Amino acid sequence: MQVLDRIRVVLVEPSHPGNIGGAARALKVMGLSQLAVVNPRRFPDPQAEWRAAGAQDVLETTTVHESVVDAISDCHWVVGTSTRQRRIPWPMKSAEEIAHEAIARLSRDPDSRIAILFGCETSGLTNDELQKCHCHLQIPAHPDYPSLNLAMAVQVVGYELFKRAIATQPDARQPEPATWDRPPATARQIEGLMTHLESVLIASEFLDPANPGQSLTRLRRLINRVQPDETEVQMLRGVLNQLSKANSGPK
Amino acid sequence: MQVLDRIRVVLVEPSHPGNIGGAARALKVMGLSQLAVVNPRRFPDPQAEWRAAGAQDVLETTTVHESVVDAISDCHWVVGTSTRQRRIPWPMKSAEEIAHEAIARLSRDPDSRIAILFGCETSGLTNDELQKCHCHLQIPAHPDYPSLNLAMAVQVVGYELFKRAIATQPDARQPEPATWDRPPATARQIEGLMTHLESVLIASEFLDPANPGQSLTRLRRLINRVQPDETEVQMLRGVLNQLSKANSGPK
Repeated sequence: MQVLDRIRVVLVEPSHPGNIGGAARALKVMGLSQLAVVNPRRFPDPQAEWRAAGAQDVLETTTVHESVVDAISDCHWVVGTSTRQRRIPWPMKSAEEIAHEAIARLSRDPDSRIAILFGCETSGLTNDELQKCHCHLQIPAHPDYPSLNLAMAVQVVGYELFKRAIATQPDARQPEPATWDRPPATARQIEGLMTHLESVLIASEFLDPANPGQSLTRLRRLINRVQPDETEVQMLRGVLNQLSKANSGPK
Repeated sequence: MQVLDRIRVVLVEPSHPGNIGGAARALKVMGLSQLAVVNPRRFPDPQAEWRAAGAQDVLETTTVHESVVDAISDCHWVVGTSTRQRRIPWPMKSAEEIAHEAIARLSRDPDSRIAILFGCETSGLTNDELQKCHCHLQIPAHPDYPSLNLAMAVQVVGYELFKRAIATQPDARQPEPATWDRPPATARQIEGLMTHLESVLIASEFLDPANPGQSLTRLRRLINRVQPDETEVQMLRGVLNQLSKANSGPK
């Protein structure tokens, strides 16, 4: 998925190596591959490897930088995640809006590269770091406790980017989602089932044809709501046949 | 946020207590509060508490069950997360579609309760567990490595639920997102700036009025693209005034 390869996630001064590993896994699961860290407290580290699970390849190509400027130097659009309101407001978008704009920019210009910055666990990006960004990103969260874990924030942003990429890139579609294994029943097959059901209900004296009440209507509504497939209709008719036979046998 | 309080996230046989804590934090950040665990390997556990961070309250009210049936007994709609294709296909929706349907169901019927099941880290939900569900949920992920961490999966689903809840519940809106601190400049103010700029450029001999070229058009396009606010226009005109003064002073 060529567009996603041109997005770099930059973790600025992460304190916990576990979050670097968690971020690497979060990226790979969503088809992203570029991770950069600026002045990590501990990296490489066994905890990062453990949390990365099957994303060791992302961890191995993770670049380590001494400054944010160095980590983003070749990028054309720089986004900074932010939770707090700043004194001088900056252009601000939701994760979903950023994903739309990022994929549009990358699709329009095949040479462009994008960086998305995430600040350290306790205090986020500094004002100085945020002012290096073209746009700020806010992940919607409950105002009582809007404190997403760092790797979780990377996961949510990666998820929005991947969702947008597969929605817009014809070459990048997921394998078709679960289709049904049998064709849906036709209206004629449903009518056959209903007629069959009615005759069995009358033969079994569940239904009085002179005074049918609402049972058949309720059964029809139930069957229509469930939209059975061909096999299910055949199976239900088999059950009805079997029940009629049992009823009509010697008592 | 009353609708989100009627959604129960159920972790079935989680192996790592850290994931229980991570899930608790993921829920609280997205305004959810009900967590249940079925046969956890270790719980309560210090690792769960550490990863829960500010969501100790969710952890303290987490219920522990001996069976899935017990954990979901009072729920009206049960959703199971699934990654693999099953032999008998089940109704399957994306995380976003599930969020839409869940919030619609909870809004329509104020007594309804919903459960969302997540299987154990290594193998997910069993076929038997998935067959207890009305619908299956699939989180979009890259086919090369679709293996989301358990707490990350909870985070993504919680994020979609919260996003949908704030989009549909007028009482549950977030505080208004970052608005600008100054009113945008009017067209008249922009024209004032452009005229001022032109006169300064001519006075400084940057621009030859007899042969102006495209510079003014490019500057106008730049100014329009950036959509300055009133204060910014005033500031730019202050800069122009200052530069003109400096230029016209003794050399």
